[in-house]
Amino acid sequence: MKRIAVLTSGGDAPGMNAAIRAVVRGALYHKLEVYGIERGYEGLINGEIKELSVGSVSDILQRGGTWLKTARSKRFMTPEGFRRALDMLQNFEIEGVVVIGGDGSFRGGLELTKAGITVIGLPGTIDNDLAYTDFTIGFDTSVNTVLSALGNIRDTSSSHERSTVIEVMGRHCGDIALYAGLTGGAESILIPEEPVDMNKICRTLIQGKNRGKMHSIILRAEGVEMSTQELAKTIEERTGMETKVVVLGYIQRGGSPTARDRMLATRMGYKAVELLLEEGMTSKAVGVKGDEIIYYDLEEALNMKGCHDKSLMELAEIMSI
Amino acid sequence: MKRIAVLTSGGDAPGMNAAIRAVVRGALYHKLEVYGIERGYEGLINGEIKELSVGSVSDILQRGGTWLKTARSKRFMTPEGFRRALDMLQNFEIEGVVVIGGDGSFRGGLELTKAGITVIGLPGTIDNDLAYTDFTIGFDTSVNTVLSALGNIRDTSSSHERSTVIEVMGRHCGDIALYAGLTGGAESILIPEEPVDMNKICRTLIQGKNRGKMHSIILRAEGVEMSTQELAKTIEERTGMETKVVVLGYIQRGGSPTARDRMLATRMGYKAVELLLEEGMTSKAVGVKGDEIIYYDLEEALNMKGCHDKSLMELAEIMSI
Amino acid sequence: MKRIAVLTSGGDAPGMNAAIRAVVRGALYHKLEVYGIERGYEGLINGEIKELSVGSVSDILQRGGTWLKTARSKRFMTPEGFRRALDMLQNFEIEGVVVIGGDGSFRGGLELTKAGITVIGLPGTIDNDLAYTDFTIGFDTSVNTVLSALGNIRDTSSSHERSTVIEVMGRHCGDIALYAGLTGGAESILIPEEPVDMNKICRTLIQGKNRGKMHSIILRAEGVEMSTQELAKTIEERTGMETKVVVLGYIQRGGSPTARDRMLATRMGYKAVELLLEEGMTSKAVGVKGDEIIYYDLEEALNMKGCHDKSLMELAEIMSI
Amino acid sequence: MKRIAVLTSGGDAPGMNAAIRAVVRGALYHKLEVYGIERGYEGLINGEIKELSVGSVSDILQRGGTWLKTARSKRFMTPEGFRRALDMLQNFEIEGVVVIGGDGSFRGGLELTKAGITVIGLPGTIDNDLAYTDFTIGFDTSVNTVLSALGNIRDTSSSHERSTVIEVMGRHCGDIALYAGLTGGAESILIPEEPVDMNKICRTLIQGKNRGKMHSIILRAEGVEMSTQELAKTIEERTGMETKVVVLGYIQRGGSPTARDRMLATRMGYKAVELLLEEGMTSKAVGVKGDEIIYYDLEEALNMKGCHDKSLMELAEIMSI
Repeated sequence: MKRIAVLTSGGDAPGMNAAIRAVVRGALYHKLEVYGIERGYEGLINGEIKELSVGSVSDILQRGGTWLKTARSKRFMTPEGFRRALDMLQNFEIEGVVVIGGDGSFRGGLELTKAGITVIGLPGTIDNDLAYTDFTIGFDTSVNTVLSALGNIRDTSSSHERSTVIEVMGRHCGDIALYAGLTGGAESILIPEEPVDMNKICRTLIQGKNRGKMHSIILRAEGVEMSTQELAKTIEERTGMETKVVVLGYIQRGGSPTARDRMLATRMGYKAVELLLEEGMTSKAVGVKGDEIIYYDLEEALNMKGCHDKSLMELAEIMSI
Repeated sequence: MKRIAVLTSGGDAPGMNAAIRAVVRGALYHKLEVYGIERGYEGLINGEIKELSVGSVSDILQRGGTWLKTARSKRFMTPEGFRRALDMLQNFEIEGVVVIGGDGSFRGGLELTKAGITVIGLPGTIDNDLAYTDFTIGFDTSVNTVLSALGNIRDTSSSHERSTVIEVMGRHCGDIALYAGLTGGAESILIPEEPVDMNKICRTLIQGKNRGKMHSIILRAEGVEMSTQELAKTIEERTGMETKVVVLGYIQRGGSPTARDRMLATRMGYKAVELLLEEGMTSKAVGVKGDEIIYYDLEEALNMKGCHDKSLMELAEIMSI
Repeated sequence: MKRIAVLTSGGDAPGMNAAIRAVVRGALYHKLEVYGIERGYEGLINGEIKELSVGSVSDILQRGGTWLKTARSKRFMTPEGFRRALDMLQNFEIEGVVVIGGDGSFRGGLELTKAGITVIGLPGTIDNDLAYTDFTIGFDTSVNTVLSALGNIRDTSSSHERSTVIEVMGRHCGDIALYAGLTGGAESILIPEEPVDMNKICRTLIQGKNRGKMHSIILRAEGVEMSTQELAKTIEERTGMETKVVVLGYIQRGGSPTARDRMLATRMGYKAVELLLEEGMTSKAVGVKGDEIIYYDLEEALNMKGCHDKSLMELAEIMSI
Repeated sequence: MKRIAVLTSGGDAPGMNAAIRAVVRGALYHKLEVYGIERGYEGLINGEIKELSVGSVSDILQRGGTWLKTARSKRFMTPEGFRRALDMLQNFEIEGVVVIGGDGSFRGGLELTKAGITVIGLPGTIDNDLAYTDFTIGFDTSVNTVLSALGNIRDTSSSHERSTVIEVMGRHCGDIALYAGLTGGAESILIPEEPVDMNKICRTLIQGKNRGKMHSIILRAEGVEMSTQELAKTIEERTGMETKVVVLGYIQRGGSPTARDRMLATRMGYKAVELLLEEGMTSKAVGVKGDEIIYYDLEEALNMKGCHDKSLMELAEIMSI
């Protein structure tokens, strides 16, 4: 392989820039030419492709968001759009593409694979919702951002002695809620993977109050069946505690990446280059298991089903006694 | 005067604890006895009053929220409740009360004044909506919190090349939006003091886009007539730009106070004690003009009408060209 | 005036970029051509001068340091260097220069003034050591950085029950130590403007210990006669408390500027442009008094002698009882 | 087992409080009585032992330092001191002790083990210098603190176009330097595990300069043979670049723990309780391998020899090309 490209696609995540930098510097170290594709698959179709040098990625390591921009592309799903995307890779003689993004971005990569392009997927999403990897790039930063917001909200919540329901991101995977709730000392955590047990929630709050704890934080992942407003209203009705609501929104997706996310992104980005350098390499998804960078066949990775860590949920409950 | 008390009332604000500490240590330095009243006027009615020492306020300077708790009290508005509050001050022989809070808290203090208690009001509210003082305790911290959130949201907004409307606190006073918007480089700022000029907003965004700026941040104070959702929808319709929404909520009210808020709170808290020590002192509201701690008669302060700083709004517009 | 330039000189300070942006956008708003001079007076001599547009200063508002770089220039002090600097301004037909920096940078500006150039000085230095202005650009950020470091050090200091001497910047002016010490609850503050009273320092620590306070923070500005090491050693000898030392160094000079520093920088930067637009304007130094942007004749400003705020020092002592 | 105790010993680390909380709540959940021993082994000798409840550890999860205080104890090393320590455990009928600390603290625990006490060691130290575990409690927070300081210093370093040598903690283990350097984009990293290659350092800086990079950051762990001052002087002499020095010191040991450190501490603290509940359990050291909480026999753990991760050092070099 002599020429590779890198793109970011789908929702942005802190650490994407660190991954781009690692791919670029890793590639140049190994004497590959490396191109940046802007705006994901949409930019690929439009030929928004530029050659990158060591200096191109200076000063991006610590930045949130993605320097290559990101987009969702409907055209890539059409035969014409897909054809055009392949033409562009052909025009630039790009043989390998590193795709940084989530589930949907990887599926796009799988299509390219079928057309003969080698694709390496890097898990860039704050949601931690890819089953084949323990952690995704951006998750640690997002959890720390939520933790900081939770600290602020606790100040107000305890001063007024009331409950607050905080809604965090996570449609299918409740890991942000689970990790931030456990490490932030939330009194209750609701995730999409488990049914809402309203009795238990109210019981916990009332027992806390009986012990003198006049305020509480309930963390709810957005994918949970019962809405944030409904949850707050029900708590208020069934416990008599004033209950406020905060929806954290996009602050969870930005910010300078933590050391851990930069490390993960750098190691994964470099691994992508190493894989592309191997003779006869086929498409892969790079992940992390424990402290080791691992990879699976791209399609296999996409088909893996995760199950969340029940033991952490139990631990959270024990800690909020 | 030999015995004074301090309470926090209404919405909490970062720096309230620094103010409490300054009142307590200032009072003890001048050989006054000092009491803390918990839960504002409600706690006063309930006799939640405790004597404080130098050590009572150790380690609270840097904390958000209020260590004395806060509450809104309907009972204080009733003749029975008010009578009981006065009885409690009598029981403890408290002659002067430092009230840390906003507009409503000061009005409560005015009632006490009419019954012969000397009240010193300290402006503790993030909203900066008290006309007699340039700044309130908590405002600077809140602006910095919004600035940090705005930075995170800009990462995402620029990566996806879209607009985001951020709703911040401020029902009557748009200062949080104005200061955070000006210092955060928001493309547009909407405050309750000025009518919404939809043409201008859209024009600014389109001109920016024509110059190559593909993303933008619009900061909207909650008191603005047009709702956040409606605003986003209108922008999307009239400019064709994808527009997202974030409501920051209670994260604006918490967090460790900035140096400036701690300084303001400490100076004001000590000034309250100095005023109470003066012979024949009547109720006052403490504020800041420029870099000087000033005070007005409490009633006079409450009757002052502010007008926001139009020059800052103009400056913000010039800077977002 | 049709053509102006802006440069940063001397030690960098957070908010310099916000000031550059305000000068550039303010100038363009008023239809002036505006040039950026890199590396201060050294770059001026070398002709490192480039025209700036609205977009040139995008995305620098929130950055620490100075985008135009800074340097100290010995050549500017020589007749040849100075001549060359004037030639360069002539070549580019630049009639007004905004100089962002401290004392030394202003003196350089004064020389240019004598040669017929209109110079507007903006106080960019963390030290707050310019007597004509209440505050300098960068000071608020620096104080908050020290406060955050002080919080970390207090964690360790209190866990081990020992004293720690923290050395902060400030050769002639102890304001960083004074503001950070007062707002950080330091047990003792040493500034160059006041003699070291070793008895008082030790007495404070021992009295604190007698009241149960087992740890303490002593803040020392670098310009204080007694060295940090000597101070720590003397405290250890005379109180028997284990005493550690931290020299904060350059972390005080960097970081994203606070809201207040950005606001100050933006207002001052725009004021500089307004002054340059006035008919027959002569060289000025822009400052802030209270909440108002003011200015003095440049030479007059340089000759003003400040005296530090003794009342804050007293307040700090009362608060650390 | 019916009665256990927990202590912190040696240098404090962020997350120690989260570990204490997990031990206390885990123990109470399993109906054990749990005691807190203040000031480590020294406090044990002095009988500074108090029973803890669920509420005792409220509001400590997010705090830096250690709520139980810490100390180094010489008396514990003497036969009399050790005897007294055992007596105290006997007096309170404490059968199991959780020791949170580093190498030296574990050795103290080993002595207790030989006298029949079951000891569970939790790795609480920022240095990450215990070979049996991938990570220690406090390491992640410390790396993030260094990263933030490095960002500030880079602002100044790049504005002045000079090099800065930053000294971080790590006497035998260079992990703080390695992780912060790799994730902070340091141009050069020096750790005690590898000899100083002055040629390579200078070559890297000069090559960077030739490519237009006018500033650089060199991270040096304190245990490296060549001193920070000497290193800076040598770089200045051999490259002609102005080189400044910052010694970060105790700011690295404090601060609110990151999500990751709180998670590690919580999981390890709970694991300690689970181990103590097992029939016939002997002394153990709890650690983490990958994402799994593991444990070794205490003595075995102490005898394990680590070797640092050479691949990360190589990765750092590739990234700083």
